Amino acid sequence: MDRSAEFRKWKAQCLSKADLSRKGSVDKDVVELVQFLNTRDQFFTTSSCAGRILLLDGGINGFEVQKQNCGWLLVTHKPCEKDDVIVALKKANGDATLKFEPFILHVQCQQLQDARILHSVAIDSGFRNSGITVGKRGKIMLAVRSTHGLEVPLSHKGKLMVTEEYIDFLLNVANQKMEENKKRIERFYNCLHHALERETMTNLHPKIKEKNNSSYTHKKQRNPEKAHAQCITKENDKELENDDDDLGINITIFPEGY
Amino acid sequence: MDRSAEFRKWKAQCLSKADLSRKGSVDKDVVELVQFLNTRDQFFTTSSCAGRILLLDGGINGFEVQKQNCGWLLVTHKPCEKDDVIVALKKANGDATLKFEPFILHVQCQQLQDARILHSVAIDSGFRNSGITVGKRGKIMLAVRSTHGLEVPLSHKGKLMVTEEYIDFLLNVANQKMEENKKRIERFYNCLHHALERETMTNLHPKIKEKNNSSYTHKKQRNPEKAHAQCITKENDKELENDDDDLGINITIFPEGY
Repeated sequence: MDRSAEFRKWKAQCLSKADLSRKGSVDKDVVELVQFLNTRDQFFTTSSCAGRILLLDGGINGFEVQKQNCGWLLVTHKPCEKDDVIVALKKANGDATLKFEPFILHVQCQQLQDARILHSVAIDSGFRNSGITVGKRGKIMLAVRSTHGLEVPLSHKGKLMVTEEYIDFLLNVANQKMEENKKRIERFYNCLHHALERETMTNLHPKIKEKNNSSYTHKKQRNPEKAHAQCITKENDKELENDDDDLGINITIFPEGY
Repeated sequence: MDRSAEFRKWKAQCLSKADLSRKGSVDKDVVELVQFLNTRDQFFTTSSCAGRILLLDGGINGFEVQKQNCGWLLVTHKPCEKDDVIVALKKANGDATLKFEPFILHVQCQQLQDARILHSVAIDSGFRNSGITVGKRGKIMLAVRSTHGLEVPLSHKGKLMVTEEYIDFLLNVANQKMEENKKRIERFYNCLHHALERETMTNLHPKIKEKNNSSYTHKKQRNPEKAHAQCITKENDKELENDDDDLGINITIFPEGY
């Protein structure tokens, strides 16, 4: 079977299966994006989460319950209020940790070039930890990941270690991150439209390829007002970016075009 | 210029440049790994951080100072003590955040297959957020990344929002993560040796390829005692793994071999 026939087979198998997540459905905020990707011949999505605030109860670092996949005291894809967390924390008997987990998406791609375009769009939209995986049998997967998380231990052996005032402050930070995360999903969706249109144009008219190559560079946007609908990394991302350059980790040199 | 000559040129350029990081040198805990990779024709490292505990001072989400690359109140690659953080926090006038950042490594690879081997080793060693990037000019980069972080806001507009007891508790968690991070770096180094030896053997004796293919699958280890020196993902990783399956995000199906 040739590669594209095999890919169509994988896609049909994948999309015909039931949603195995706890929630059992795709998150509202990414339904449009997931559906759009699945209408394209060269892509299909295998998993997604729009972003959520989680309160987990576990042993130290949440290990015991983690592996039993239980101990979820609270999970929400909407902004979270102090009282919900206070109530949920009463059920904690181990070390409870509050997490904000940003948008994550896994997309299987037909060709490496398809994954490259998607990866470039992800980076340009602010999802700095995105990357490609090439499986043993040649399956090409793009994971869209952000650095934009939060992980805060709140209780130890069931004892609350912080004040209600702190939880209130923490949820403000978490809710802001969720807002920023939503903007990035919109940016990703818009970028994706532009990049795929451009790719189609380029394939139809190879001569304009040179011009369109610029879409694979990660230009910084100096005008925040313009940034939202466009396919660029905002200069003023409101986050602690786990960025090798900005945070000055040991760098010999970072290759151009990377 | 053919691909391997071009790669040798990039490697020579990269390794001849000065270390541009604040620290200006490779972290002690990864020197051996970095040197080992750089002795191999098919790899060179472009940046690395062994893992660190950081205290950053910033506006909300650390934005303003972040982009000026300042406001580092504390940074250490060793286990951290409460008093160091208490002293450093006195200098905070914005929103100070304590972070544990795990090992990160960027490796440029000659061929996609080289990146695949390294990626498989990274995943098997517990670095779940690792991924490949293919640059505009065909540069192939592997980023080794963990999900094993911590990000905890501690003060708001210079006002400390938590108790000293909490900071003590938090540093215990951070120091444990640093310990686990070290074990993973060792595991990565051991895995890498085995995988590259196996690859060399396979190239010399193609007939044993079939057998060695198993090295690209992510077997779970049921015997923690055995786990350390071996190239497998420990069943009992002591962390809140940002794992799509375990944390049950929307999954249609996860392709085999991914």
